[in-house]
Amino acid sequence: MPLGDMRTPLLSNSFDAPEEPLPCDPGNPTVGILGSGDYSRSLAVRLVACGYRVVVGSRNPKHIATGQFPDGVQLLTQREAMVGTEKVVFAALYPEHYHTLLGLRDVLAGKVLVDVSNATKLNNGEPSNAERLAELFPESRVVKGFNVVSAWALQTGAHDGSRQVLISSDCPEAKRTVIQLARSMSFLAVDMGGLASSRHVEDAPLRLFPSWGGPLMVTFLLILFFYGYNFLRGILMPYLSRGQNNFYQLPLETVNETLPAVALVILALVYLPGLWAAALQLARGTKYSRFPGWLDHWMGRRKQLGLLSFLCAGLHAVYSMCLTLRKASQYRLLDAAYRQVKAGVEHSWEEPQVWRSDLYLSSGILGLGVLTLLAITSLPSVGNALSWREFTFVQSGLGYAALTLSIMHTLFFSWDFAFFSFAYPYYMPPTYLLALILPCLVLVGRLFLALPCLAFRLAKIRRGWESPCHHPPQTQEDTANGVLPRDLSGDV
Amino acid sequence: MPLGDMRTPLLSNSFDAPEEPLPCDPGNPTVGILGSGDYSRSLAVRLVACGYRVVVGSRNPKHIATGQFPDGVQLLTQREAMVGTEKVVFAALYPEHYHTLLGLRDVLAGKVLVDVSNATKLNNGEPSNAERLAELFPESRVVKGFNVVSAWALQTGAHDGSRQVLISSDCPEAKRTVIQLARSMSFLAVDMGGLASSRHVEDAPLRLFPSWGGPLMVTFLLILFFYGYNFLRGILMPYLSRGQNNFYQLPLETVNETLPAVALVILALVYLPGLWAAALQLARGTKYSRFPGWLDHWMGRRKQLGLLSFLCAGLHAVYSMCLTLRKASQYRLLDAAYRQVKAGVEHSWEEPQVWRSDLYLSSGILGLGVLTLLAITSLPSVGNALSWREFTFVQSGLGYAALTLSIMHTLFFSWDFAFFSFAYPYYMPPTYLLALILPCLVLVGRLFLALPCLAFRLAKIRRGWESPCHHPPQTQEDTANGVLPRDLSGDV
Amino acid sequence: MPLGDMRTPLLSNSFDAPEEPLPCDPGNPTVGILGSGDYSRSLAVRLVACGYRVVVGSRNPKHIATGQFPDGVQLLTQREAMVGTEKVVFAALYPEHYHTLLGLRDVLAGKVLVDVSNATKLNNGEPSNAERLAELFPESRVVKGFNVVSAWALQTGAHDGSRQVLISSDCPEAKRTVIQLARSMSFLAVDMGGLASSRHVEDAPLRLFPSWGGPLMVTFLLILFFYGYNFLRGILMPYLSRGQNNFYQLPLETVNETLPAVALVILALVYLPGLWAAALQLARGTKYSRFPGWLDHWMGRRKQLGLLSFLCAGLHAVYSMCLTLRKASQYRLLDAAYRQVKAGVEHSWEEPQVWRSDLYLSSGILGLGVLTLLAITSLPSVGNALSWREFTFVQSGLGYAALTLSIMHTLFFSWDFAFFSFAYPYYMPPTYLLALILPCLVLVGRLFLALPCLAFRLAKIRRGWESPCHHPPQTQEDTANGVLPRDLSGDV
Repeated sequence: MPLGDMRTPLLSNSFDAPEEPLPCDPGNPTVGILGSGDYSRSLAVRLVACGYRVVVGSRNPKHIATGQFPDGVQLLTQREAMVGTEKVVFAALYPEHYHTLLGLRDVLAGKVLVDVSNATKLNNGEPSNAERLAELFPESRVVKGFNVVSAWALQTGAHDGSRQVLISSDCPEAKRTVIQLARSMSFLAVDMGGLASSRHVEDAPLRLFPSWGGPLMVTFLLILFFYGYNFLRGILMPYLSRGQNNFYQLPLETVNETLPAVALVILALVYLPGLWAAALQLARGTKYSRFPGWLDHWMGRRKQLGLLSFLCAGLHAVYSMCLTLRKASQYRLLDAAYRQVKAGVEHSWEEPQVWRSDLYLSSGILGLGVLTLLAITSLPSVGNALSWREFTFVQSGLGYAALTLSIMHTLFFSWDFAFFSFAYPYYMPPTYLLALILPCLVLVGRLFLALPCLAFRLAKIRRGWESPCHHPPQTQEDTANGVLPRDLSGDV
Repeated sequence: MPLGDMRTPLLSNSFDAPEEPLPCDPGNPTVGILGSGDYSRSLAVRLVACGYRVVVGSRNPKHIATGQFPDGVQLLTQREAMVGTEKVVFAALYPEHYHTLLGLRDVLAGKVLVDVSNATKLNNGEPSNAERLAELFPESRVVKGFNVVSAWALQTGAHDGSRQVLISSDCPEAKRTVIQLARSMSFLAVDMGGLASSRHVEDAPLRLFPSWGGPLMVTFLLILFFYGYNFLRGILMPYLSRGQNNFYQLPLETVNETLPAVALVILALVYLPGLWAAALQLARGTKYSRFPGWLDHWMGRRKQLGLLSFLCAGLHAVYSMCLTLRKASQYRLLDAAYRQVKAGVEHSWEEPQVWRSDLYLSSGILGLGVLTLLAITSLPSVGNALSWREFTFVQSGLGYAALTLSIMHTLFFSWDFAFFSFAYPYYMPPTYLLALILPCLVLVGRLFLALPCLAFRLAKIRRGWESPCHHPPQTQEDTANGVLPRDLSGDV
Repeated sequence: MPLGDMRTPLLSNSFDAPEEPLPCDPGNPTVGILGSGDYSRSLAVRLVACGYRVVVGSRNPKHIATGQFPDGVQLLTQREAMVGTEKVVFAALYPEHYHTLLGLRDVLAGKVLVDVSNATKLNNGEPSNAERLAELFPESRVVKGFNVVSAWALQTGAHDGSRQVLISSDCPEAKRTVIQLARSMSFLAVDMGGLASSRHVEDAPLRLFPSWGGPLMVTFLLILFFYGYNFLRGILMPYLSRGQNNFYQLPLETVNETLPAVALVILALVYLPGLWAAALQLARGTKYSRFPGWLDHWMGRRKQLGLLSFLCAGLHAVYSMCLTLRKASQYRLLDAAYRQVKAGVEHSWEEPQVWRSDLYLSSGILGLGVLTLLAITSLPSVGNALSWREFTFVQSGLGYAALTLSIMHTLFFSWDFAFFSFAYPYYMPPTYLLALILPCLVLVGRLFLALPCLAFRLAKIRRGWESPCHHPPQTQEDTANGVLPRDLSGDV
C-alpha cells in the first residue's frame, strides 16, 4: 500500500495541459525559488494555485522540460530570477550546494531567504542548515520554515496532519512576512522564535512516531515479563523438574496467555493517571497547580496505550478463535473421545464448565466490542465529528465498561481455580492473577471516587472552586465553560 | 484511549517559548477577553494565531503565570482591558459570576459582548445564560456563540466536526461582526436568529448523540423481542412442559440466535423508507411534494441503522467463530463420537448437511464482507473522498447485495427445516422465519420497482418531470444536475 | 447505510428559521442563479454563508415556498434577477432546458455564465453541455465548473475529497473570476484550460472508481486462475480419473485455497514496481529520466492493490476461522475418533504436526495484523496525520514485514509436503507453490538491493546525483530536501 497514487491525486493525465496560463492576480507579489528540483516544482504549483507569481531560478533553465512546471511560472537563470523577485526567495536545494549561491549575494541582499531543508541526522549541537545559510548570506534575512511540509502536501493542499508550518528567524519582520505567506497558502504557521530553534525545526521530520516511544516500550517490557513468566512456569520448570516437554506451546499457547495479560494491564495503565490526577486535585483542593511532569507525560500517552491494549486484545481474540484449528487441540479431543469410550461414559456434560466457558466467551466478546468502539472513535475523522461531551462519554464511560468486562472475562476464565493448590506449581501463581492486580485496583479507585462526597468536591474543584486552605488564593472569575484542557486531562 | 495527548498536539514542550513575540498585523482590531481561565487561554491562542491583538482582563492579572498566555497577549485588569478593546469582548467566565462584571457596565456599553457559556442542564423554558447577560448589560450588544467549540478545537484549529459555530443575537450588526470574526478564525458560522434561540444553542453541547436515539431504541426493542421469544421458545417452555434444563444457553446461544435476527431486520429497515419514498413519488407523480415527517426522519437515520445492523452482524460472526471453543460443543462432539463408536458407523458423512453448512457459512462471510465495506465508506474521511456517484453505488448497490447475501445465509441455514412440524414446538415458528419476513418484503419491493415501466417513470420524476394530474403545476426549469438532496433521500 | 442524514447535517429542524436575515457584506458582489431547484438552493446556501448576495431567477417565483431558500436570498423572475446581477450567473437547470433561456440573451450579454451541469453519459466526441450553452449565448462568457461538487458538499462545506473544482473557459478573465469565487467558497479551483476540456470535466462525475479498474481486473483474473486451477486439480481430475466426488469443496474449501494465493501474489505485485523502478534508476544512473508509462501507472495503483490483497487475506482469515464450524470437519473428526478407538491408539500426538500448525497459524495471524496496520494507515484521516517519514516507515518497512510473514505462513503450511510425489497428482504442483514464486522473487530482489554497494549508489541517485555516463548532464543544484514525488514513487 505505498503512496504511489498520491502524485497526481485526483486528476488523470488527460487534464495535464491547460491550454492557456491562468492570469495571476496582478496585486500579488512575485515569489522566487532557487533550484528546479521536485520540491521546487511542488512549491511552484502551490504558490501559483494560491495566486502568486512565481519565478524559478535554475543554473541551466534551458535543460528543464517545459511541462515540468505549471503554466505561468517563469524559468530564468538564478540571477535573472533573483532580480525579478521582490521579497521572498525559497532556497529549494540541498544544503551541501548552498555555497554555489555565493555569487548571488548582491541580488539576495535585503531579501527574505527561506531555508526549507531537512536535517539528514538528529542535531547534536552543531549549527543548523538555516544557521549556516545565514552565515553565508549575512545581508539576507534568513527564515527557517516549510521543511515539515512534504512535496505531496504542497501539491494537493494542506490536510489535517500536515497543516503545521514551523517558522523561525532572527528577523521579526521577515518572519512575519513568511508567516503571512504560509497562512495565505492555508497552512497553520507556528512561530518558533529565533533562528537558533531551527535546529529543533530541522529535526522534526526525522522523529519517528515520537509519542509512541514510551507506550511501545511499556508494552514491550510487559510482553517480555509475562512471556518470560509463562515460559518459566509452564515450560521450563516442568521440563527441569519432571522432564515434561511442553516446548510446543512456545509459538502459540504461551503467546496467547501473554497477550490478554498485557492487554489488561495496559488498559489499567490508561485509566490510572486520571485517578492519580483526581486524587492530587482532591488533596490539593485546587485544579490550578500543575501536575508533576511524569503525570502530565503519562496522561499525554493514554490514547497510544489504549490503542496498544486494543491491539493486544484483538490479537488475543484472533489467536483464540484459531485454537480449534490447531493439530494439538484436535489430538487432545481425539484422546478425550478415546478415554470416554474406554470409560463407557455416555454423557460427558459438566454444567458448571459449560456455564464457565459461555460466560468468559461472552464477556470477552463484549469487552472486545466496546474496545473496538473506542478504537474507532480514536480515528481522527470520527473523533472530530463528535462533540466534546460525546467524546468524553465514549472514552471515559465506555472505557470503564471495557475494563469491567475484561476483568469479568478473566475472572470467569479463572473460575475457582485460584483456590486450588495445583494452580501454584513451584509457588508461582497463575498469570491471570498477576494481570488482575492493577486493573482491580483501578476499578476500586474509580468506585471510591464515585462516592458522593468525593465526587461532589471534585466537580466543584473542576469548575474552578479552590479549597480555602489553598495558597495563593485565586478568584473564581478566572474560569470558563467547562471545556478545558485541564479538565480533560483530569477526567476519570 | 482518552484525549490526553490533544493538549499539545504536534509540538513537544521544547518549543513552548518563542524568543520574541509575533508582531501582529497592525490593521487587525483588538479583541478583549474577560476571564483568564483555560477557555480564555485557548481563545487567546487562536485569536493571536489568526492575527488579532488580544487583551485579557483579569481581576488579579499579577497572579497569572507569564507562560500561560501566548506572547503578544496583554494581561491587564478587567477595566483596563475593556478600555483597550475596540469592539468585541468575549465573556469567558462562568454564568454564575456574570454579576461580578456589573462594575464594568460603563466601559462595556456599546461593545459587542460574546457569551460563550454552556448550559449545565437542558433548558426547560427559563432564560438562557446569554439572555441573562443581556439583561445585566442592556447597553451592550450581547451575541451568543462559540459555546459548541471546545478549548481543544480552538487551540489546534477547526476540524470536520467542530467547524460549526452557532451564533444568535438580537442585534444584526453585532451578529455580523461576530460571524465575520468566526469566519476569519476559519469556523463555519451559522446564523441562528435572535437571542431567544440561544436557549437551543446553549443546549447543543449537552445533547448526547442526538441522531442515535431512535435507532438505538429500535435496536434495543428488537433485541428484547427476539431474546424474549427465543427464551420462551427454547428455554422456558421446554422447562415448564418437560422439565428440560436449557438455561445454560442464556449467555451465549440465545444471544447468538438473537443477534442475526436483529441484524437482518434492521438492515431491512435501512432500505424500507427508500422504497416507501419511491412509491410515494410514483403515486403522487412528482418529487416536489414533501414527504411526511416520520418518513423524512426515518430516512435521516438510515446510516445509524445500517451501522447498528453491522454491529449486530459483526458480533454474531465473532460469537459464531467462538462456538467451537465452548465446553458445550466439545461435550456434544465427544458424546457423538461415543455414539458413533457404539453404533459401529465408520463414515458419518452426510452430503446435504456438508453442502448446507458450507453454503450458509460462505454466504454469511460474503454478506459480512460487503457490510464491512459499507461501514468503511461510512467513515467521514473515506466517504468524503468518494464522488457522489461512487457513494451511491456503494451504499445502494452494495447495500442490496448485503441484504440478498444475508437472506441467502438465513435460508441456507434454515434449509428445509421450516417444513417439519418439529420446528414449531408450542406452535411457535423458528426465529429465523420471523426475521425473514421484512427483508423478503423489502427485496420483493425493490425488484418490483426495477420493472422497466416503473423504473423509467421514477427516473423521469426524479429528473423533475411531473405527472400532468399533479397540481399546482411547476415548470421544468427549476431543477438541476441530478446531485440533489431530494434525489439522495429518495434513492432506493 | 445510505446518506439520508446528510441533508440537515448538524442542526436539527428547530433551528431552521432564523428570525431576521443576515445582513450581507455590502462590499461583496451579487451572484445570480437561474433555476430554483435543489442544486440552486444548495448553491444559494453556500454563497450566502460565504457572504455573497444572491438573487435567484425563477419562471414562477410565486410558486416557491418561502422557507426553501435561506433568508437574504431574493426570489425574482428570471429577467429581474439577471438585471440585478452584476457579473456571475449560475445556470442551475437541466441542459435540455437551456433553450428556454434564449429570451434572456440581452440581459446575459457580457456576463459570466457558469454551466454546472453533468453529462448523463460518457462523452464520445459530441459538444459538451457548456459548449452548447456557449453557442446559444455567444455574447456571454461561458465557464464550465462546479459540476463535480454535490449539493451536499455545497451545503455542508468542502471536505477532503470534494474540495476540487475543475474550471474551464475560453475567456481567461471570466475563468479567473470564477476561480476566485470558488476559492472564496473554500474550494480548490483547478484551471483545466479552454472550454473544449469541459468534455472531460463533464465526464468526471460519471467515472466510477477510476483508479480501481486495473487492480480489480488483476484481482479478478488471479481469482479466476487459481480457482480454476484448484477446481481442476482437486475436484475435476479426481472425479474424471477415480470418480471421486469432491464437489462439496466448491463453495468453501476451494475458495479458501484460492484467496490466500491471490492475496500473496497481489502483495508481491505491490512491491514489484518499486524494485523495477530502483533497478531502472540504478541502470540509468539518474532519477531524472521518466519511467515508462506502464511502470508509472502500476506504481500509481499500489495502494489499491495493497487494499485488495488485504481484503483477500482478511476473507481467508475469516473463512479459516469458520473451518471448524463446518459439518464436514465435524464428520472428519468423528471418523478419526472412530478409527483411533478401533486401532486402540491412546495418544494420537504427533509433535511435528503440532509445531507445524502452531507456526503457520502464528505467522499467518501476525502477517494479517501487520497488513491491518497498513490498511489503517491507508485511511485518509490517519495517513494525513503521519509525517512523511512515518508514512514511509509504515508502508515500506511494515509492508515487507507483512510479505515476509505471509511467505513464512505459506512455507510452514506446506511444510515438507512439496518433496513428496503425492503432492503432484496429474503432474500439477500444489497451489501454494505457484503462489510463492513471485513473492519469493520480490523478497530476493529486495535483499539484493539492500547490498551495501547497490543501496549506497541508489541513495546517491535519489538525492540527485547522476552517473557521469548519463547524458545530458544536469547540475546538482536542482534538487531539494528529499521529500520528492519521484523519491516516493521509487521507494522500495
